[in-house]
Amino acid sequence: MSLLLESAATRAMAETALQRTKKKALSFATVVKHRAMIRAYKSDPIPEEKIQRLLTYAMHAPSAGNLQPWEFILVKNPETRAKLAKAAFDQTSITSAPVIIATCADIQRAGSKYGARGSFYSLVDTAFASLLILLGAVEQGLGACFVGSYNPEEVVKLFALPDHVRPVGLITIGYPAESPRKPGTPKLPLSRLVHAEKW
Amino acid sequence: MSLLLESAATRAMAETALQRTKKKALSFATVVKHRAMIRAYKSDPIPEEKIQRLLTYAMHAPSAGNLQPWEFILVKNPETRAKLAKAAFDQTSITSAPVIIATCADIQRAGSKYGARGSFYSLVDTAFASLLILLGAVEQGLGACFVGSYNPEEVVKLFALPDHVRPVGLITIGYPAESPRKPGTPKLPLSRLVHAEKW
Repeated sequence: MSLLLESAATRAMAETALQRTKKKALSFATVVKHRAMIRAYKSDPIPEEKIQRLLTYAMHAPSAGNLQPWEFILVKNPETRAKLAKAAFDQTSITSAPVIIATCADIQRAGSKYGARGSFYSLVDTAFASLLILLGAVEQGLGACFVGSYNPEEVVKLFALPDHVRPVGLITIGYPAESPRKPGTPKLPLSRLVHAEKW
Repeated sequence: MSLLLESAATRAMAETALQRTKKKALSFATVVKHRAMIRAYKSDPIPEEKIQRLLTYAMHAPSAGNLQPWEFILVKNPETRAKLAKAAFDQTSITSAPVIIATCADIQRAGSKYGARGSFYSLVDTAFASLLILLGAVEQGLGACFVGSYNPEEVVKLFALPDHVRPVGLITIGYPAESPRKPGTPKLPLSRLVHAEKW
């Protein structure tokens, strides 16, 4: 191979490595820093493999006793989405998103081992799973929003959840139709929130 | 620049890009997949900058109304750690870890805006912050464990937490002295946990 060709090939390799970094393997730090609540979405459908990827990330959440107390309601039907939006005080992210993953906590699964403390664990663990969906969306080039403001009774009724399953978050997902409100949602000073040894 | 030099320089660039990916910027997917609960730690101290990095990641968690209801108690003192271990049923990860970040939820900060629902938000949001510490530990070459099993009253007393602040997780952190129990904590089949449109 001539030096000229080799140089071009090597340059192509360098580009590929960088593209790979950008396209396929966003760094953890980049994902964390770029996560932001997106409330307006394009109507473009999300490829099924991306949704599966988000759910697979969610399954990597830690859970007390590895009981995995999470359940996911996958909502795409426009009629269900309209009803869900109503149960969530007509928030625009719900009406706009082509897909909603409602994360729910099975308090029985954790409760069977941990008693009353199981409710606490199931909520914390399902929050973990929810955050992995939010972060995974960034990695997949999607936007997402965690909607915690909804009428729990109405959501339970709409999804026909059994008594032992509680809704946690309605995660709206889609291709962003707005820029995230970044840089910088204002943050409290870390020094105010960190206490040495005790409060 | 001669072609020979250019080629070498480009190759070096390619290598640097790859090394950067490997050493400095673990991918999101890698971090998620390699996260595991580590319960045994070396006694080596953790550089302060790594702890600050973990806390900074935690601050990137989303929160209802951006109220950031989390507080962090940073425990290093061996005496405090021993007392904390006692409050957490003598779990080995607590006694072994050189650093513990206790994540706490300020229910008043969220409650002032959201009333009773604020408790729910503050717990979910503090769980988000906790998971970012756990994931950040992987990125920083550390091991961590989320300990949710403790006597809440004893932890409140030990940290002198005010009434409106509740402990969420005791996150033990250190350089791992054990291999994670991987590959594969057994997982429930995803198909069993995903429901289309409703339960």
